[in-house]
Amino acid sequence: MFVVLVYDMGEKRVTKALKRCRKYLNWVQNSVFEGEISESNLAKLKMELDKIIVTEEDSVIIYTLRTTRYSEREIMGLRKGGQDLII
Amino acid sequence: MFVVLVYDMGEKRVTKALKRCRKYLNWVQNSVFEGEISESNLAKLKMELDKIIVTEEDSVIIYTLRTTRYSEREIMGLRKGGQDLII
Repeated sequence: MFVVLVYDMGEKRVTKALKRCRKYLNWVQNSVFEGEISESNLAKLKMELDKIIVTEEDSVIIYTLRTTRYSEREIMGLRKGGQDLII
Repeated sequence: MFVVLVYDMGEKRVTKALKRCRKYLNWVQNSVFEGEISESNLAKLKMELDKIIVTEEDSVIIYTLRTTRYSEREIMGLRKGGQDLII
């Protein structure tokens, strides 16, 4: 399945969350990740994030797409992250 | 078309960008918006955001989905925003 993941984390937890997300997905932008991921890896990722997030402060949104990819992604402004896509 | 929009804006410009995005899309979470939008309205929104963003600091990502909707959206942790969905 193809997912787009966006997080909004407290500063102290960003580095940990970034590391976990990059393990399974491509880093597109600051707080946005995407990629093909198996159901079991997505479950793993969610479990790992669950341990990091403070439910009263942080949030993670995961979009699972029906198709294998979105049809278009457009970036306006700065391209933070995104290194993963070059590799 | 159905789009998911994520922005990462300097604090000073967040309120303006939020206002513009809510005009056309549903506010899902802090910096995440989604919704059905016509091509011409998307063009308008992009033009409006283009006037707000500082290209060296801010970024906006727009995913256009091939299908009318994603198949699943999961939110972990805090639900900021999202008021639009209740209406």
